[in-house]
Amino acid sequence: PKVVTLPGDGIGPEVTAAAVAVLREVAPDVTIEEHAIGGGAYEAHGEPFPAATRDALKDADAVLLGTVGGAHDSPWNKLPRPLRPESGLLALRKALGCYANLRPVRVQPGLEHLSPLKPELARGVDILIVRELLGGIYFDGDRKIEGSSAYNTMRYTTPEVERVADMAFWAAEQRKGRVTSVDKANVLEVSELWRRDVQALRDRKYRGVHLNHEYVDSVAMLIVSDPGRYDVIVTENLFGDILSDLAAVIPGSLGLMPSASLGDGPGLFEPIHGSAPDIAGKGIANPAAAIMSVGMLLRHGLSRSDAANAVDRAVALALRAHPTRDLGGTAGTRTFTRAVLDAME
Amino acid sequence: PKVVTLPGDGIGPEVTAAAVAVLREVAPDVTIEEHAIGGGAYEAHGEPFPAATRDALKDADAVLLGTVGGAHDSPWNKLPRPLRPESGLLALRKALGCYANLRPVRVQPGLEHLSPLKPELARGVDILIVRELLGGIYFDGDRKIEGSSAYNTMRYTTPEVERVADMAFWAAEQRKGRVTSVDKANVLEVSELWRRDVQALRDRKYRGVHLNHEYVDSVAMLIVSDPGRYDVIVTENLFGDILSDLAAVIPGSLGLMPSASLGDGPGLFEPIHGSAPDIAGKGIANPAAAIMSVGMLLRHGLSRSDAANAVDRAVALALRAHPTRDLGGTAGTRTFTRAVLDAME
Ligand SMILES: CC(C)[C@H](C(=O)O)[C@@H](O)C(=O)O
Ligand SMILES: CC(C)[C@H](C(=O)O)[C@@H](O)C(=O)O
Repeated sequence: PKVVTLPGDGIGPEVTAAAVAVLREVAPDVTIEEHAIGGGAYEAHGEPFPAATRDALKDADAVLLGTVGGAHDSPWNKLPRPLRPESGLLALRKALGCYANLRPVRVQPGLEHLSPLKPELARGVDILIVRELLGGIYFDGDRKIEGSSAYNTMRYTTPEVERVADMAFWAAEQRKGRVTSVDKANVLEVSELWRRDVQALRDRKYRGVHLNHEYVDSVAMLIVSDPGRYDVIVTENLFGDILSDLAAVIPGSLGLMPSASLGDGPGLFEPIHGSAPDIAGKGIANPAAAIMSVGMLLRHGLSRSDAANAVDRAVALALRAHPTRDLGGTAGTRTFTRAVLDAME
Repeated sequence: PKVVTLPGDGIGPEVTAAAVAVLREVAPDVTIEEHAIGGGAYEAHGEPFPAATRDALKDADAVLLGTVGGAHDSPWNKLPRPLRPESGLLALRKALGCYANLRPVRVQPGLEHLSPLKPELARGVDILIVRELLGGIYFDGDRKIEGSSAYNTMRYTTPEVERVADMAFWAAEQRKGRVTSVDKANVLEVSELWRRDVQALRDRKYRGVHLNHEYVDSVAMLIVSDPGRYDVIVTENLFGDILSDLAAVIPGSLGLMPSASLGDGPGLFEPIHGSAPDIAGKGIANPAAAIMSVGMLLRHGLSRSDAANAVDRAVALALRAHPTRDLGGTAGTRTFTRAVLDAME
């Protein structure tokens, strides 16, 4: 099998190197091919998602992404929109047809103290957020800024809703069997369609799954004040962007949060943290999320769940023995990675 | 002066009665006129924002709202959209021209333990969220659901952005002088306009205020993991709906959260909690937020800051002496209200 790696910007290359070391260890037969994306790709090739990268995806079995983007005041942010690093990321998602972004939010036993929430609220949290990734206000072509007015369009069609809802129900069947669909149906027509179609799919195909519908503002509250109530959450692109980042703070460090984006073609696996340009190149970035993304890649991208479990177990051990700075420890990227590799033996 | 009260649905009438008792005590010269809104108004008059209510607003100096809406499975939610309780609320906001929703999020000293956040994060939090309330995807007429597709439009014009930003800068000048404007400018054109116009207004008129721009997903994280970093937050309608509800969990009870909606005409003052139909009529609802809304009404609606301060002080005392059930105490609506009235003497 072939895995394309896209290290990207900031700490992306460091954490991807760590993740690749782990991947080589557990799956030595995998061919790894590295390509450019994001701001670095723009610098080198004049665009954030170069043709060579796009071509390489054609026969890939899975894609491992670092992270893209520069600092808040990076000149990249002043480029015309299609040349910015984020546009490379959106184009990549589109090219891969990854319509469902899966983000597990799990508080590891013994690490409750890292959470900004009280330990009794954080303990045992285990949520899977399924975010629609290719539709809605992100991609709709009906958008414009001109003079003193601007607009974007949040649009969905039934097939777009159904395919991501299907993924959520499928995932719920292997978990606690509960799905919360999130919308703003008391105000938006597009949410009315969303709610109707999610419910219809449940009634048609997933009668064993318990489905309820909640408003996005209410979920933003409850995910913080009572996170234990959720199993699988499914929602549209923009709400998912906000809620999945929000939920990601519960475990206490973004350095612990992997993600998988799945669809028709090869899956895309990436840590959810940003490029953290302030600490890039210092050897202190926490590679756990990137390594856990390898776990998701092995499970969902290459169907190797034994190897995936081995990675997950090794990361859990390393986190206890050699916590990185964001976790209140002192381990650097290299030490932590070494600890994961050692724990796998 | 004349204040129109709109008790609304669920616990709305109970908490409004409590608030009115306090208003009568501190401002006996105020004329109070009660009208219908929401689900109850639909039952009685066939529409959630009846003509009689609309007419009564014409010569009002301020409006005190309870809350509207039924239970999750209320038949009201199945009515055609314009007849639902929420539509009455949106029509009311529009009729009053209230384009800026101000929501103070303050953790009262000594009540940190109520927060879902660790006490060291909750302590001292004092944020003012200014949400644009009459524009964006909520009100834009370009919206439709038809067959297997639906859309809504998030649109803003420069004058809409400027008037609410102006309110935020003005408020910041009497606080710590810092404004965070929230958008999704890395993806949305409408956010690009928002960011540009907010910055231009700052550069033109509020050079003494410190302005920064953050993405909505990042703010959702930081408001939980580091709430102390914010002073005034200004954002568009939908992002404001989500973020203001999210921030509202920090003090630990929605029963503590008042709000003021200001614009060209009389202001609208209301607790941010919902209608809580499960506890309606039991005499146990916490009226603190409704009473604190009277405080905001006195300050912003009637320019009586001495009376406003008296109300705020009395509520703070009553919260300590007679906490309600949502705060871990035993006081009912009546006992708490009595305590506020007593504390004012
Ligand atoms: C960088 C940005 C375009 C992206 C998004 O909004 O999807 C990011 O926030 C994410 O969640 O992966
Ligand atoms: C009831 C609903 C229409 C309303 C809104 O979304 O504005 C509510 O959530 C609020 O924040 O006041």
